[in-house]
Amino acid sequence: MSVDGTEEFTRAPRTTPTRYRERATWERAAIRAILDEGYLCHLGFVVDGAPVVLPTLYARVGDRLYIHGSTGSRPLRSADADPGMPVCLTVTLVDGLVLTRSAFNHSVNFRSVVAHGTAHRVTDPQERAVALDALVNQAVPGRAADCRPANERELAATAVVRLDLDEVSAKIRADGADDDEEDLDLPYWAGVIPVRTVHDTPVPDPALASDHPLPGYLGERH
Amino acid sequence: MSVDGTEEFTRAPRTTPTRYRERATWERAAIRAILDEGYLCHLGFVVDGAPVVLPTLYARVGDRLYIHGSTGSRPLRSADADPGMPVCLTVTLVDGLVLTRSAFNHSVNFRSVVAHGTAHRVTDPQERAVALDALVNQAVPGRAADCRPANERELAATAVVRLDLDEVSAKIRADGADDDEEDLDLPYWAGVIPVRTVHDTPVPDPALASDHPLPGYLGERH
Repeated sequence: MSVDGTEEFTRAPRTTPTRYRERATWERAAIRAILDEGYLCHLGFVVDGAPVVLPTLYARVGDRLYIHGSTGSRPLRSADADPGMPVCLTVTLVDGLVLTRSAFNHSVNFRSVVAHGTAHRVTDPQERAVALDALVNQAVPGRAADCRPANERELAATAVVRLDLDEVSAKIRADGADDDEEDLDLPYWAGVIPVRTVHDTPVPDPALASDHPLPGYLGERH
Repeated sequence: MSVDGTEEFTRAPRTTPTRYRERATWERAAIRAILDEGYLCHLGFVVDGAPVVLPTLYARVGDRLYIHGSTGSRPLRSADADPGMPVCLTVTLVDGLVLTRSAFNHSVNFRSVVAHGTAHRVTDPQERAVALDALVNQAVPGRAADCRPANERELAATAVVRLDLDEVSAKIRADGADDDEEDLDLPYWAGVIPVRTVHDTPVPDPALASDHPLPGYLGERH
């Protein structure tokens, strides 16, 4: 708990200075809100001393993040070994491009979460089931209850990895053009180009019966 | 050059097996096309043996990628030192969520580029100027010529870092629902939810004259 009573995660060591008008936060609610809006993360790990960054799906369950993949994948095999695999899991939502009179002050409105820690393979069948459902529901809320659950063969081929949200922070920029005073009269357009991710009307599989209704959980979101 | 005459980048060591219906490619044209559509990357580097992944803007100029930041930032300072900073720069474009009858076969349509290599600080003034213009134009094509260029003070505060596209590959999934034959008659909806990034109508800065026209390069794109 911080002095103002806001619940906070542990402050991670700073790797970059906070830029102008970017706000860093360790508040649990703010971090959870960003994580809940996304479903794609970039997972960083180290192989033979060199960094590797791969895009993958994630899910948040309480203060844990889950990712999954093939049991044959090299990074997930690393998470198998005690003491686990050091990772950095980053989620970024872009909200706008900020155009200023000066090239230097151009910026991006965004919300990002960076979680550092040690990832571990999940072996408990119950926790694996919860995580796999959450991974489906994170991308398509409501979907996990409306598809065939994994069978034994599929479960055996799937590695689930957990990262506890412990050393985690968010950065947010949500602001307009931020020009220096002396640039305000320059003859250039300034402002914000809003950016958002759109999920369009679902396209049915050709093998689906033509009168198969679109599930409510898809209609509501899209 | 590969046997079919397609120009290819050096094949990076495989860190994960290619999943079903994902296609890996080393073709320069395919890799350049993905890089040219995005402007946000996730940059991975190693600090005290642990991975760090940060979102940042990038620009492609020929077969070089550029990123920039404050000269005070820790990762960019690392790139200063000979022999440079090992990095992994990843760009991911999400095109769709693929819903199958089975939970296991759910997938994502996407295009990603993963570039490995050693990043180096750029000190040549001419190359720095080209890179900084490219960084503005990558996010907002045409913008670099329509704003005030950086002055000496701003240039002194800006680090530009280069990564040569050498060890780089792309992965692409662009396909429909891919269910097992025996699942096709299950009563679940299947198909693709198209996903795209939208740039909405630019919102002028309140300090801008109300009759200031929207530049053509913004109107055309949005």
